[in-house]
Amino acid sequence: MIEKSEKQPISTPVIRRLPRYYRFLEEIEREGIQRISSRELAQRMNVSASQIRQDFHYFGGFGQQGYGYHVGDLRRIIGDILGVNRQTGVILIGTGNLGKTIASHMDFEKRGCELIGLFDKNPLIQGTSTAGLPIMPMESLENFCRMHHPEIAVLCIPKDGAPELTEELIRLGITGFWNFSHSDLKISNPDIIVENVHLGDSLMTLAYYMHQKNQE
Amino acid sequence: MIEKSEKQPISTPVIRRLPRYYRFLEEIEREGIQRISSRELAQRMNVSASQIRQDFHYFGGFGQQGYGYHVGDLRRIIGDILGVNRQTGVILIGTGNLGKTIASHMDFEKRGCELIGLFDKNPLIQGTSTAGLPIMPMESLENFCRMHHPEIAVLCIPKDGAPELTEELIRLGITGFWNFSHSDLKISNPDIIVENVHLGDSLMTLAYYMHQKNQE
Repeated sequence: MIEKSEKQPISTPVIRRLPRYYRFLEEIEREGIQRISSRELAQRMNVSASQIRQDFHYFGGFGQQGYGYHVGDLRRIIGDILGVNRQTGVILIGTGNLGKTIASHMDFEKRGCELIGLFDKNPLIQGTSTAGLPIMPMESLENFCRMHHPEIAVLCIPKDGAPELTEELIRLGITGFWNFSHSDLKISNPDIIVENVHLGDSLMTLAYYMHQKNQE
Repeated sequence: MIEKSEKQPISTPVIRRLPRYYRFLEEIEREGIQRISSRELAQRMNVSASQIRQDFHYFGGFGQQGYGYHVGDLRRIIGDILGVNRQTGVILIGTGNLGKTIASHMDFEKRGCELIGLFDKNPLIQGTSTAGLPIMPMESLENFCRMHHPEIAVLCIPKDGAPELTEELIRLGITGFWNFSHSDLKISNPDIIVENVHLGDSLMTLAYYMHQKNQE
């Protein structure tokens, strides 16, 4: 039995790398591989073996010199750290193209979450369904939150409406935001967790490297 | 006139931060603010002022003690580094929900790119339009690339088909991939640039912080 080392805070860059480790380990496990060395894992993931050893050392340093890591154990312990076995209630607000795509394609359950409610202010789509859930009017938000206690809200709305809605959602008990509203949410309350997503930044990074290459 | 300092390679973490700087500076410029100190910018962006000074130092160290940065100049120089004034040709493959969302909502032009072609293997949607572009069959891909020389391909296809298609696209002159296919593309050719997007990793990071908070 592998145990997590005594609680020491994990640094943000390491946390950001954990989901990727988890993904690769799942894949390796599916291939039927039981043990893997940090060198092999590094090669697959295109990172350095020393980074892997350092990162894993953070949460217990499992892995024996010469034997490598046990893939299943490692995946499970990283999964526990990430909380993949929880089922945090999630609501999604704004079921336009992007909202629908996220509701239908994101495997919430695999990530410790459960999508339980969809909301949109457009009366034309209220009552229709996406991902097996009915789209509810914004007027139902308050009652829904009081009954089902969702903790995370996915915001797929234009940025203009985001600050006001965020206030309302916090009042209704939401403590985590997955924000696609094209503007960083600024929330001063340290108990509220915000994950801002900017796909445009990713495209710009790609464009930067293309630009550099063409200048060489 | 501000000039970029002598070519020194910019580190990956700094590059990843550039699009975010660019976004905030655009917003600040829109508000009509002409000068900003590293401290004010840091506060808005929720990073440290010393990180900002360090990052900006990388590409020329503009900004005068006591005067702050000229917002417009700074935005322009970061835009130039990112290549936002180029119009790199982009094609998108796989116009399901996700592909359609990206084609319609991603402001390619603002990011130095131009979306010029959409492709899908599903005959039922070929010929229909998204984002003002017709969806073409995969059979037209080769001719299209030979005629229009796109450089970037956005992959919105399931992961099973990605490796084979990638090979084909590289043969047709694509040198950059924005990959949404739920699997990291492994390309050994160092001239090919890949930006893998995993929205699930972002959700997992949020879920991790929620999990930690609930354990406190």
